[in-house]
Amino acid sequence: MAPYRRHVFVCTNQRDPSHPRGCCADKDGANIREAMKAAMEQAGLSGTVRVNKSGCLDQCEHGVTMVVYPDGVWYGFVKLADIEEIIRSHLIDGEPVERLRLPDACVNTSRCPHRGGTVQLGLGGL
Amino acid sequence: MAPYRRHVFVCTNQRDPSHPRGCCADKDGANIREAMKAAMEQAGLSGTVRVNKSGCLDQCEHGVTMVVYPDGVWYGFVKLADIEEIIRSHLIDGEPVERLRLPDACVNTSRCPHRGGTVQLGLGGL
Repeated sequence: MAPYRRHVFVCTNQRDPSHPRGCCADKDGANIREAMKAAMEQAGLSGTVRVNKSGCLDQCEHGVTMVVYPDGVWYGFVKLADIEEIIRSHLIDGEPVERLRLPDACVNTSRCPHRGGTVQLGLGGL
Repeated sequence: MAPYRRHVFVCTNQRDPSHPRGCCADKDGANIREAMKAAMEQAGLSGTVRVNKSGCLDQCEHGVTMVVYPDGVWYGFVKLADIEEIIRSHLIDGEPVERLRLPDACVNTSRCPHRGGTVQLGLGGL
């Protein structure tokens, strides 16, 4: 059998509450992962898509953060209410949810505006 | 800045010791992830390659298991002694370490011979 068609990693990292960057655990990361897993099973995606919790994805200011591979699509500020759309649009229909997507200017850089940087974003609702 | 060039997820899932499938935590998963992270930093890969711990990758009989994205390359039975080769060959030179690679017939299926299944493998050393 082939490996998973898509593999989702949801950050559930817990930091000390005093940490200035915050953490995904404090933003409901574990519940979001559990709810996503349950919704995917209900959608019949078990065996073709897997959703795992992960350690710190280092996108703390964008939490709850998740990444979908092999696409390499990063989502930020994900809430429980967003799960259904991610599953339907991205994991079933193959269309990433643009409104939740983190632009390259945000991922993996301290120059991201959410970290106090100065990079210009083309990011609407965030 | 672009997202990570490669993203490694190492299973560190802990199961009850009596579980018949075993678990990666009992096979040194956490130490392997820590050692890999340290070795990658030493190799100057911080910022371009990230190594995270993950929850159960559901390849328990192949532990310690890891997956490298976006390549979608799965490794099984990884030991501390294998880390240097994975970093040098795959993460730096882009050549997966074939001797550690899990074939598709092993990943994501209960028919895998390591789970008591009957699929024929072209797998040398495992």
